[in-house]
Amino acid sequence: MSSHAPQPILLDAVRLSGLLDRIAARIGAAHVRTDAHDLAPHLVEGRGLYQGTTPALVEPANTEEVAFVVAACAEAGVPVVPQGGNTGLVGGQVPFGALLLSLRRLNRVRDLDPVDLTVVAEAGCTLHQVQQAAEGAGCLFPLSIGSEGSCQIGGNLSTNAGGTAVLRYGNMRELCFGLEVVLPDGRIWNGLSRLRKDNTGYALKDLFIGAEGTLGIITAAVLRLFPAPRARATSMLGIPDPETALSLFRRLRNAAGDSLTGFEIMPDFGMEIVLKHMPGSVRPLAERHPWYVLAELTSTRPNDDLSQLALDTFEAAFEAGEIEDAVVGSSEAQCDALWKLREDLSDAQKFEGGSIKHDISVPVSKVPYFIAEATRLCEAHMPGLRVCAFGHMGDGNIHYNLSQPEGMDKAAYLATWEEFNRIVHDLVASLGGSISAEHGIGILKREELPMYKDKVALELMAAIKRAVDPRGLANPGKVLLD
Amino acid sequence: MSSHAPQPILLDAVRLSGLLDRIAARIGAAHVRTDAHDLAPHLVEGRGLYQGTTPALVEPANTEEVAFVVAACAEAGVPVVPQGGNTGLVGGQVPFGALLLSLRRLNRVRDLDPVDLTVVAEAGCTLHQVQQAAEGAGCLFPLSIGSEGSCQIGGNLSTNAGGTAVLRYGNMRELCFGLEVVLPDGRIWNGLSRLRKDNTGYALKDLFIGAEGTLGIITAAVLRLFPAPRARATSMLGIPDPETALSLFRRLRNAAGDSLTGFEIMPDFGMEIVLKHMPGSVRPLAERHPWYVLAELTSTRPNDDLSQLALDTFEAAFEAGEIEDAVVGSSEAQCDALWKLREDLSDAQKFEGGSIKHDISVPVSKVPYFIAEATRLCEAHMPGLRVCAFGHMGDGNIHYNLSQPEGMDKAAYLATWEEFNRIVHDLVASLGGSISAEHGIGILKREELPMYKDKVALELMAAIKRAVDPRGLANPGKVLLD
Repeated sequence: MSSHAPQPILLDAVRLSGLLDRIAARIGAAHVRTDAHDLAPHLVEGRGLYQGTTPALVEPANTEEVAFVVAACAEAGVPVVPQGGNTGLVGGQVPFGALLLSLRRLNRVRDLDPVDLTVVAEAGCTLHQVQQAAEGAGCLFPLSIGSEGSCQIGGNLSTNAGGTAVLRYGNMRELCFGLEVVLPDGRIWNGLSRLRKDNTGYALKDLFIGAEGTLGIITAAVLRLFPAPRARATSMLGIPDPETALSLFRRLRNAAGDSLTGFEIMPDFGMEIVLKHMPGSVRPLAERHPWYVLAELTSTRPNDDLSQLALDTFEAAFEAGEIEDAVVGSSEAQCDALWKLREDLSDAQKFEGGSIKHDISVPVSKVPYFIAEATRLCEAHMPGLRVCAFGHMGDGNIHYNLSQPEGMDKAAYLATWEEFNRIVHDLVASLGGSISAEHGIGILKREELPMYKDKVALELMAAIKRAVDPRGLANPGKVLLD
Repeated sequence: MSSHAPQPILLDAVRLSGLLDRIAARIGAAHVRTDAHDLAPHLVEGRGLYQGTTPALVEPANTEEVAFVVAACAEAGVPVVPQGGNTGLVGGQVPFGALLLSLRRLNRVRDLDPVDLTVVAEAGCTLHQVQQAAEGAGCLFPLSIGSEGSCQIGGNLSTNAGGTAVLRYGNMRELCFGLEVVLPDGRIWNGLSRLRKDNTGYALKDLFIGAEGTLGIITAAVLRLFPAPRARATSMLGIPDPETALSLFRRLRNAAGDSLTGFEIMPDFGMEIVLKHMPGSVRPLAERHPWYVLAELTSTRPNDDLSQLALDTFEAAFEAGEIEDAVVGSSEAQCDALWKLREDLSDAQKFEGGSIKHDISVPVSKVPYFIAEATRLCEAHMPGLRVCAFGHMGDGNIHYNLSQPEGMDKAAYLATWEEFNRIVHDLVASLGGSISAEHGIGILKREELPMYKDKVALELMAAIKRAVDPRGLANPGKVLLD
């Protein structure tokens, strides 16, 4: 896949040296790193798809220092790539010759207000840190994704992160009221609004969220909190197929309304590899089933008997043939254990050889058809392929991952990635879906985007990019083709 | 206030005539109106603040015809103002010499899917029409505003309409998944996505929503539906002051969680003028109270006993001195009657002479301070003034309206509007609030915006406007100063 990496930018050595000196004088020489050993972990990402290069990693301490660095780079004509926890899955955080700017020292929770239900967090706070701050105030920050221990708020915003609670709480964009952004020329936009209603002009916040750093660098945000749930029931259900998962979803949404906060699916293959490879995993139901649903009910009302609500609903679903077996967690530990089976699935796949991954979404009603048809096409294309379609069925986002046939050479398998992209993404497009539901475009999908995105939308994006970053210095080569 | 109206645009008569002929040949001569009698109702808005002018009102029937009209106008260098139900409160829909384009013939509900919970509606559908379509499918479209019988979806989107259900469901922006837009040069952007998760580039949808037609004309949208509530409890509470309203809000949010879908306040003065002027109004509580709260609980769970939940909560609130008296509606008719008292307040004010209106928001925690301090300042500025601060306390949006002193000349009173703007909006700004929470900027506030909006934000808005509408033909003179 690394053939997609853009050509490295070559910088003039003398000019660069002057720039780094200038930056060091302002933010401290210790925070301008050029040692290969220091740089190395920042130049590769989790999947090993790209190997980046950079003349230096700079680590400003606050918004003003970020603005100084960006302005100095703009003056010198040097492009800048922002980096948070380096957990992105599409290469958006990898520099190819540009200066690398880490946000990790901007890691303060500036303010938390449990009445307004807002928290003001700097870009370098980890997601976990914000979740903990919220919890400490009796609140919930609902974003929940696999990398939450190390991913950072700035990256979550720049990729409009999704995860398992979108069904009820929305994506990162809906979880943010305001932003502070350093623009590509070093100006600071202070848009740290805490308002739920503000109709004074264009939706600038929404524009920067999901822009993957190509319009500027997010340095802080006002995030939205919710009252902490005080009741919870997590259930694992054995079901015959995705079609019945959809029926069950409708039934549960009907019965539980807003209390349905998560609805995930995973196939038998996924459950079996978790049980096989992940230490401490315990089979949740007595028998194996073709598919599983993980359903989460939560409520902020004290003493809300969600387990009973779940059991009543499942009884009717059982009679309708929608479920084969069910377990409802009766303690926090049991609920967590059920979630862990689902969360461990990505890691478990690593033990099964190469995995070709698709992060797609389609309208919820079309998920069963998508899974059936994509599986038919992919299995016909490569017999022995092991389909692992799982994820956030309640919001139409399926991680359509394909584990290699047993015994096949991993590299040979991964070389077929683009063939499968075409099969899967053509189908997705025909269903009005998205080729990137929650991971973004970065480098990985920037050449594919023009195949599927409306031409006028691409023209608008390019026009906006030119308007906000006329010199193309903000995270160059990402999202948009040059 | 009409002194704020921009200079009318003067068009070349010969070129104009050729343009109108060309448009008539495509959309039919009957849909190109130039008769003064036909134009008149489209050139004034509800408050009578502006008198517009236009060479013609054109009424295309579909998106392609809108695109044709806009492209033809662009070719001729003629600006276009889109108009929906003409219910806007800031003059955004009023043309000053530009061609007026009505969306009213684009009034089809193209599609409704109760599984995906989406409805695809054209811009000229009334809000009521969409609400009814949703209801017919057992769903809820939650946007609810005073003008819902005649306002249109395109206008709701272009002003990012708010209303009484934002607390639970969000503004129009959050209620929209995708858009179809005709750009200022006539290109059509098909962004009618039904997806809950789609991270393939910039948030174009969000940019057009709330742009008041200055970036293009919205012709259709995918709107978000919710399962219809099946339980409801509306309460009217007599309370001592806004401070206790805030305590009560927290208490109710804590007890009811997501079920708290509305939390409105109104003062004694407001209640009394509704009871005095509005036929059929009945005093809701035995005595008068300094302030009132209207609280709405809803739930999608069948048999959810919300009345009991409300009564239990109010009992505790009564003991804490937060409420003086309460009534909980026990039938749909009683709930509707309580809401009508609140909804009639705007109309009732018309009987009390001139009203200087402010549509502001502040963080929820600051609403009590804002009301107290603004009232102190305004009453000091004009003794005898009658403050009518009411609205959506749960989301921090207060309609801070000032009825004239009894017996004062109405015109003389309204001539002081800007003085009160300064007092109220300076205070709002000092609290991190917004001078337009839900009505937009239009003409009414475009000169005031630069006093309060971040300078860099204004620069970004201007850059985006230039990028999307380089010739300034889309609703000129609105939102941004030329």
